[in-house]
Amino acid sequence: VHVSGGGVRAGIVVTGTEVLSGRVADRNGPWLADRLEELGVDLAHTTIVGDRREDMLAALRFMAVEGLDVVITSGGLGPTADDLTAEVVGEFQGRAMVLDEALEERIAEILRPLAERWPSLDMEALRTGNRKQAVIPRGATILDPVGTAPGLVVAPGESAPPGEGASPAKATPPRARVRPRGPTVVVLPGPPRELQPMWAAAVKTDALRAALAGAREYRRRMLRLFGIPESEIAETLRAAEREGVEMGRLEITTCLRRGEVEVVTRYEPDAEGVYEAFAAVVRERHADALFSEDGRSVDEQVAALLRGAGAERSLRIATAESCTGGLLAARLTELAGSSEYVRGGIVAYSNEAKVAQAGVAAEAIEREGAVSEVVARELARGARERLGADVGVGVTGIAGPGGGSEGKPVGLVWLSVAGPEGAELTRSVSLPGGRADVRDRATTVALHLVRRLLIGLGSRRG
Amino acid sequence: VHVSGGGVRAGIVVTGTEVLSGRVADRNGPWLADRLEELGVDLAHTTIVGDRREDMLAALRFMAVEGLDVVITSGGLGPTADDLTAEVVGEFQGRAMVLDEALEERIAEILRPLAERWPSLDMEALRTGNRKQAVIPRGATILDPVGTAPGLVVAPGESAPPGEGASPAKATPPRARVRPRGPTVVVLPGPPRELQPMWAAAVKTDALRAALAGAREYRRRMLRLFGIPESEIAETLRAAEREGVEMGRLEITTCLRRGEVEVVTRYEPDAEGVYEAFAAVVRERHADALFSEDGRSVDEQVAALLRGAGAERSLRIATAESCTGGLLAARLTELAGSSEYVRGGIVAYSNEAKVAQAGVAAEAIEREGAVSEVVARELARGARERLGADVGVGVTGIAGPGGGSEGKPVGLVWLSVAGPEGAELTRSVSLPGGRADVRDRATTVALHLVRRLLIGLGSRRG
Repeated sequence: VHVSGGGVRAGIVVTGTEVLSGRVADRNGPWLADRLEELGVDLAHTTIVGDRREDMLAALRFMAVEGLDVVITSGGLGPTADDLTAEVVGEFQGRAMVLDEALEERIAEILRPLAERWPSLDMEALRTGNRKQAVIPRGATILDPVGTAPGLVVAPGESAPPGEGASPAKATPPRARVRPRGPTVVVLPGPPRELQPMWAAAVKTDALRAALAGAREYRRRMLRLFGIPESEIAETLRAAEREGVEMGRLEITTCLRRGEVEVVTRYEPDAEGVYEAFAAVVRERHADALFSEDGRSVDEQVAALLRGAGAERSLRIATAESCTGGLLAARLTELAGSSEYVRGGIVAYSNEAKVAQAGVAAEAIEREGAVSEVVARELARGARERLGADVGVGVTGIAGPGGGSEGKPVGLVWLSVAGPEGAELTRSVSLPGGRADVRDRATTVALHLVRRLLIGLGSRRG
Repeated sequence: VHVSGGGVRAGIVVTGTEVLSGRVADRNGPWLADRLEELGVDLAHTTIVGDRREDMLAALRFMAVEGLDVVITSGGLGPTADDLTAEVVGEFQGRAMVLDEALEERIAEILRPLAERWPSLDMEALRTGNRKQAVIPRGATILDPVGTAPGLVVAPGESAPPGEGASPAKATPPRARVRPRGPTVVVLPGPPRELQPMWAAAVKTDALRAALAGAREYRRRMLRLFGIPESEIAETLRAAEREGVEMGRLEITTCLRRGEVEVVTRYEPDAEGVYEAFAAVVRERHADALFSEDGRSVDEQVAALLRGAGAERSLRIATAESCTGGLLAARLTELAGSSEYVRGGIVAYSNEAKVAQAGVAAEAIEREGAVSEVVARELARGARERLGADVGVGVTGIAGPGGGSEGKPVGLVWLSVAGPEGAELTRSVSLPGGRADVRDRATTVALHLVRRLLIGLGSRRG
């Protein structure tokens, strides 16, 4: 279900042989995709290319042929000869490369303390690299370095962009709008810590604002559901259509992520009522499964519930994990400020640790096995008591690939949450996938179980 | 430093609005990149497009214009109308879409048990989707479904591929070789569990073998270093050149990943001697930092050292973590079979847990602070003793964003490893980046410290 694209279209060119080869995961493409969506810009293509001049030029020409208004590149701005992006973009835009002396001095200033700290550095190589980074396409807008590499906003030059003229765009009349001047290119460094603030600076430049003028405003909302298959949502979309919701005005994508179904809807502001009608259908059909209407993750909800709005003190949580091996504790402590409510945890990987550290009865393990309801429950109680917490979580399961049996196959996980005044929830799940999948999903299921118990506690207190 | 590309060039088209928008990370592009490299095929471009017909066609045409021999697509093979890939590839290759009745029956068989398990499923929708998935480009080679979606190998049809004719390829004579027939397209489903075995099947088909004929054989080797900046390696590459190593015959990419420097070299088999000469230069200049010459990760090395070649029993390890909050235990238990040597761990997030669970002296925390040499050491000893392990690891630090002070800034982490017979290593590091970076890097540093202690133990015993 798609509405047609907005007024301004963009592409992303991620450069770097290490990204293309898959050795390094790209974090910039997804981040920039989010920023573009916020601006109401329609992202058409993300392309990953190695550090090769011809391939980078080809990717830029492709974006020009596709009639994109803005292209963002990441990477290839370092001091070495392999770092080609500024030069390739200059060539693409038909602009000569010139040394910007003020920029050279600015970079030298940044390097000075570094050079002092590493006296063994090759000063000549440093100066050469410094100068290279200050050679930019004539007329480009400079984005101040956050690291040592400056960014650039480069509008098309006087000469025609190389992507124009005879082109396969002719074959796709409905889409291809060869622009009069070609795209404006925003050139950003590869490290996310540098790229992110520099993008914020780029958006404020006149050059990029001009290219973005005409972007249509969109709203984006997310619903999160847990415990239903994705196909159920597909059926709900059809049901909403049948009930008369104007689904054609909503651009909806659904996806399954870490065991949860995410329903993301983008729409123009005047379709707010249509979205509300659609959300009401989801709410009605999936009351149990729908856990987030504001995009908040279960992690954030659990954190908020533990903190307790207006409560005198946070509820404290502790974990005792077997198959997840620390992942649940790691996920609980991922959020800044989690020391306020996380006491700690026990990774009870061996049976000895289950008994000695978490207080599980040895005969329970012997009688029922380490992966069993009773052991999950004793792990939860043990975590709670031993770590002096209000809420304890126990997880025990068979992550595989080995260790499965007919009665207890790989993927079987028992989970338990123990709260104050004997509140307790225990369940088993049968999770698909490999070892990493089972461990990850089990962590998500545990958080949902904690959330459910905490909501129950809240309503009981309320 | 690059050698020119091999004889066969390929591109990857990842489809899916949820991938393009960044909500789901693409795992197929990197995995396929690895497989292509093994086959000696030169990957030129990976392009991510949404579920839009025009954008998918544009990406395929781009690959044709670039003269690629093989294009692999992932995703968009599901039963719904949004799943467009087979149809778009058929159009691109100039092949009519036809219903394959044997395939329809094959998919129906796969769906039967599913339909029986979910009696509420809409059978009419199921049949429609089943039939849609069996409509394929005429003459395509079918790859048996692993899930419900069949894959395809689609050679160019009789009519000229749409990417040919007038094209911007003219502007780049050195690279662009418009192929006589255009690329062969391999169409694979999006879920990695389905895509991976189906790629293995695709490689065995005549259609793909024909397209891959002429791929040049490459070798690929990886060196891993820890504890030096990436710039030092750049200097070593220059030094090797000065020492007469024919660096032009090696294609080397270096990258910094999780605090380690990876040096990946690709070369043709007859450059084996050149590679050996290069590796010798690295070995000589970075004896301390070079920890892996066979591509094995520090995780695998620690596992092997704990298992001990030919030892009577494995050494057992246990952890006591504060700032890493369970990540170290999770990483140690990531490997299948780790229950053989991982006893368990303590997540000593609160000071109370440090004292009660790990046996850290309360006055040590009071005197020196929770992030201190003495607390790291007591955590390591506590983990070892309390969990009955041979080796204990302690980690305590300031992950941020809050909690830093002038003397103990964010990023300061103390680590300690305690082994048998009083063997002990303790150090502090100052790690860059945000909360997630600090936690992740600290985990890596801990593993390297464990490795160092275990190697020391080994040589002492030897």
